[in-house]
Amino acid sequence: MEMVGWFCHPTFVSLGLIFMPGVDLVTETDKACEELIFNHLKQLYPTHKFIGEETTAAYGTSELTDEPTWIVDPLDGTTNFVHGFPFVCVSIGLTIGKIPTIGVVFNPIINELFTGIRGKGAFLNGDPIKVSSQTELISSLLATEVGTKRDKETVDESTNRIKSLLFKVRSLRMSGSCALNLCGIACGRLDIFFELGFGGPWDVAGGAVIVREAGGVVFDPSGADFDITSQRVAASNPFLKDAFVDALRHMV
Amino acid sequence: MEMVGWFCHPTFVSLGLIFMPGVDLVTETDKACEELIFNHLKQLYPTHKFIGEETTAAYGTSELTDEPTWIVDPLDGTTNFVHGFPFVCVSIGLTIGKIPTIGVVFNPIINELFTGIRGKGAFLNGDPIKVSSQTELISSLLATEVGTKRDKETVDESTNRIKSLLFKVRSLRMSGSCALNLCGIACGRLDIFFELGFGGPWDVAGGAVIVREAGGVVFDPSGADFDITSQRVAASNPFLKDAFVDALRHMV
Repeated sequence: MEMVGWFCHPTFVSLGLIFMPGVDLVTETDKACEELIFNHLKQLYPTHKFIGEETTAAYGTSELTDEPTWIVDPLDGTTNFVHGFPFVCVSIGLTIGKIPTIGVVFNPIINELFTGIRGKGAFLNGDPIKVSSQTELISSLLATEVGTKRDKETVDESTNRIKSLLFKVRSLRMSGSCALNLCGIACGRLDIFFELGFGGPWDVAGGAVIVREAGGVVFDPSGADFDITSQRVAASNPFLKDAFVDALRHMV
Repeated sequence: MEMVGWFCHPTFVSLGLIFMPGVDLVTETDKACEELIFNHLKQLYPTHKFIGEETTAAYGTSELTDEPTWIVDPLDGTTNFVHGFPFVCVSIGLTIGKIPTIGVVFNPIINELFTGIRGKGAFLNGDPIKVSSQTELISSLLATEVGTKRDKETVDESTNRIKSLLFKVRSLRMSGSCALNLCGIACGRLDIFFELGFGGPWDVAGGAVIVREAGGVVFDPSGADFDITSQRVAASNPFLKDAFVDALRHMV
């Protein structure tokens, strides 16, 4: 019952997704949102391709091609949604030639809409945003996540990275939403972010272009080029990238 | 400049605390807020005692007595405030006989006001709140913080606790605000929370009564009684406490 307020949010009510006992609310919400978004976009762009978290979960991996492709996560931050923690969003990205070109990330709980179009800038609720001007790693606010895998090797590697990085940054935040962490980089709330082993390209397709259009850089945590299909991402302002990659060296 | 939006928030503008280059904004903000709150309360309750983070920082430790004592953190989540991460609050608590009796925690960024009065309930923006109904530790959302100490022993202990707990809970969040973590427990967004080595009683005096009035329990991470002066706190709903203390055993 403590979550009723959430499920009565206009965004969810407008989708008919108010709380119904006995229904697997999260899966139903995910599917309904993804269908709604895909149906709308398909009417506008019938020749485009579509990749969605729910569709992929149901029908297996969808290969990303050079064709214009809408990549959608209808509900990023699923654990947060279940618990009522306010870092939840819809993430929509368009890639053309595999390059993130349009990004829309909306957190309906705190009513923040992040948008970016390649070459046209990045915005929060319509106002231009840019990455932080931080130049020192030791003064930087780091975001990462512990993910969902709980085998010993993954947990050991994850906590060892955290242990090592704590000596090199100011502090650490875990919000539980990959897309919102990228938007946090884009608007300068966070200085550096990395995550390994997240769900798929739908977690990063929207946020990547928003970071870049806000003046930031998106890259593989090893320092290599970002590969949207790799389930590995790092982001920062341009000043911090080299020091950040150096801090992560031999750990990713 | 990316933080201008923050500093133009009405709460800070009303205090005359808009961004001024060259000023140590955080310290100035802290002091100005604490003075404003203390001056207001002193007019209403001239015989009461007062303990504030800034006053203590300036004049040394203030001993907590059985007298009615207002305990104030004018800015909890200082690192978040500097970076623009939206978990920032003012925390005000009143203890009588050292028992947290009134709690007010306000996050002006996302406009959430948590209140609690001993025996009178807990509220978020005026609506009653209660703790989660989660009964399984493995399905629980844990919050903790890495604090500010970066000596090897503290970091080792902190990351070892995280490593051990990751096998026992669903996931982990770090928001950067002790008072807002307590309020997260109170409104059921978080299931379990612990923190060791935070700043002082001002981080917990407001949140503790809000958790208890929301049906939750506040205790020492060892399972012993909560001591507001100990810089150690844990909180959960009543169902999870024993399993949580057991999970923390030998680590705190």
